[in-house]
Amino acid sequence: MNERDPASALQDAAPAADAAARAGRVQLMIFDVDGVLTDGHLYFGPQGEMLKAFDTLDGHGVKLLRSAGVQTAIITGRSSQIVTGRARELAIDHVFQGVHDKTVAFAELLAATGIAAADTGYMGDDWPDLAVMLKAGFAAVPANAHVELKHRAHYVASARGGSGAVREVCDLILRARGYYEALLEQACGGAA
Amino acid sequence: MNERDPASALQDAAPAADAAARAGRVQLMIFDVDGVLTDGHLYFGPQGEMLKAFDTLDGHGVKLLRSAGVQTAIITGRSSQIVTGRARELAIDHVFQGVHDKTVAFAELLAATGIAAADTGYMGDDWPDLAVMLKAGFAAVPANAHVELKHRAHYVASARGGSGAVREVCDLILRARGYYEALLEQACGGAA
Amino acid sequence: MNERDPASALQDAAPAADAAARAGRVQLMIFDVDGVLTDGHLYFGPQGEMLKAFDTLDGHGVKLLRSAGVQTAIITGRSSQIVTGRARELAIDHVFQGVHDKTVAFAELLAATGIAAADTGYMGDDWPDLAVMLKAGFAAVPANAHVELKHRAHYVASARGGSGAVREVCDLILRARGYYEALLEQACGGAA
Amino acid sequence: MNERDPASALQDAAPAADAAARAGRVQLMIFDVDGVLTDGHLYFGPQGEMLKAFDTLDGHGVKLLRSAGVQTAIITGRSSQIVTGRARELAIDHVFQGVHDKTVAFAELLAATGIAAADTGYMGDDWPDLAVMLKAGFAAVPANAHVELKHRAHYVASARGGSGAVREVCDLILRARGYYEALLEQACGGAA
Repeated sequence: MNERDPASALQDAAPAADAAARAGRVQLMIFDVDGVLTDGHLYFGPQGEMLKAFDTLDGHGVKLLRSAGVQTAIITGRSSQIVTGRARELAIDHVFQGVHDKTVAFAELLAATGIAAADTGYMGDDWPDLAVMLKAGFAAVPANAHVELKHRAHYVASARGGSGAVREVCDLILRARGYYEALLEQACGGAA
Repeated sequence: MNERDPASALQDAAPAADAAARAGRVQLMIFDVDGVLTDGHLYFGPQGEMLKAFDTLDGHGVKLLRSAGVQTAIITGRSSQIVTGRARELAIDHVFQGVHDKTVAFAELLAATGIAAADTGYMGDDWPDLAVMLKAGFAAVPANAHVELKHRAHYVASARGGSGAVREVCDLILRARGYYEALLEQACGGAA
Repeated sequence: MNERDPASALQDAAPAADAAARAGRVQLMIFDVDGVLTDGHLYFGPQGEMLKAFDTLDGHGVKLLRSAGVQTAIITGRSSQIVTGRARELAIDHVFQGVHDKTVAFAELLAATGIAAADTGYMGDDWPDLAVMLKAGFAAVPANAHVELKHRAHYVASARGGSGAVREVCDLILRARGYYEALLEQACGGAA
Repeated sequence: MNERDPASALQDAAPAADAAARAGRVQLMIFDVDGVLTDGHLYFGPQGEMLKAFDTLDGHGVKLLRSAGVQTAIITGRSSQIVTGRARELAIDHVFQGVHDKTVAFAELLAATGIAAADTGYMGDDWPDLAVMLKAGFAAVPANAHVELKHRAHYVASARGGSGAVREVCDLILRARGYYEALLEQACGGAA
């Protein structure tokens, strides 16, 4: 694979307009967990992983995505009850844990939802995300992503994982799909 | 609702003098929890939310507010024993958890205390805070608040939630109400 | 008390030379806990405070202080088994927890050790530390201290509490007392 | 020992080319834990140390090192089940905990592996690492290391411990040994 192939879906310095256009097509947004929905810290206790630190702003963004009819999914290499619980709270539609090859889970998702790869978004931070990120229509990364992912993403969030990077992408999709202003007005609504 | 209506209680670039004047009227200060009294991290373990990280400087600010006769309240969408415990330690006067519509809890607070909306302060960080923030006489946000709240606040703290943003607002209210210097002198008192 | 009284032991902009001279006299170094030995985060779980985050560099600094014959103490307003355990690990000489008036604990410390106030150091971050800080010969604060403490300290660390501020002060004392180079040479020793 | 002895393996301002050359010889990479594989926070609960915060990017770097045939080791002064668990997950080859004198563990490692000191790398952050760091062929430190270690390292990471400093060093070694591009292509592979 030539990562700089101009025919590739991804470009090094994708302009903002391209990112917005791609975000506007997203019907299914997929998130990696560690480093994306969290800040990448793995909190280990004597019995293994004990905690993950999710972000309250991110959580509301995921809920807003859903209210705009965008499906959400998680694909993660690790596996824990922690992710199961948080995903349930956020009503994530599709959860894949303990995934060795993320492109396999991605193919299953496309088959299950009938959504085309070009109409999906993927947000990841490290090399195990590269192959699937290169297949998604819209590829986003948090500010703390590995440099090789930043070079290949359509959108590099200014926020870090677990500190608003996911919300930033949710807002981008909501704007691009034309739902942002109405949802905001609804949130302000009681004060008029 | 026209969020830029000049008759609205909130303006985009409220000058510092206006913020101080509004802070000086506060008889009841209301705080959101996640992202305001904490840094917005939701620490999940296998059994759900396990921890919240509060701030020691914030805690002392809340105690100082009380000693200056300002009532304090919490209105939060989430619900946990964690908040109950911390609120008890800080002797918060009114605690509303698991709130779906914050304007309802706000109305209950006004009814229970007999304090006018114009004499309340509210500090929040995300869209669920918008409607109630727009009703409060003094609207403050931490540095990490969503951009839409920053645009509508009378005061944007330079500190982040869970790292002194609440203390910054407490100090502002104490100064505006004329209690700051006397309380400080009392704190230094033993050394003269 | 006039906090700018030139006769006071503390000055607004103490030059570095003065801080070093004061640090050189320290025979007993006293630390507040929250915001000084930690970053000020109070990690609450359903049963109250569950965790404190101490710093590994700070810990080694405290051990080096001891090896240079400087006594160490903790005075904190909160009370927990957590501090007891960490203090034991660091072999802190004197531990006062649950202290309402820190000047009382300070007086007890002077009586117990026979050390003069001018030969003690104190590091704190918030108003409850002010009165005792104004009595100590050497007053230090972390970068995250309340602004009123920064104005009154002989030394403001460039590091934050729980992230090296205590080590910075330990190094300053070790240098001022002439132990730094010998301890460093000993640490490097095996490689010559 | 004269720490600035030009015959010493370490220099104050080692140029990048020298660091790469040294990294290219590394057959065994040794890591300290606290402040290197973590951010240096020691999370204490009522029963002592409860948590360590490792980094997801670091973890993948260690796995990549192994896939390039570089052995990995941990030498740490503290001792906990936490490190045992994380080391097992990362398949670290050699784990030394509760080490008082790190040069002793280092000598054991050399004897056990038959690798020369010049072909080892060591990454540490504080004085207990100094003596062994001065013996290793390649000495690296995270951005948060004590200043005395920064002065003596061949490579100072731009990232902090527990936030990518270890990954940065793994990438440096992989590049210097010529494995980086092939591993990256493999990671991207499914998309061509």
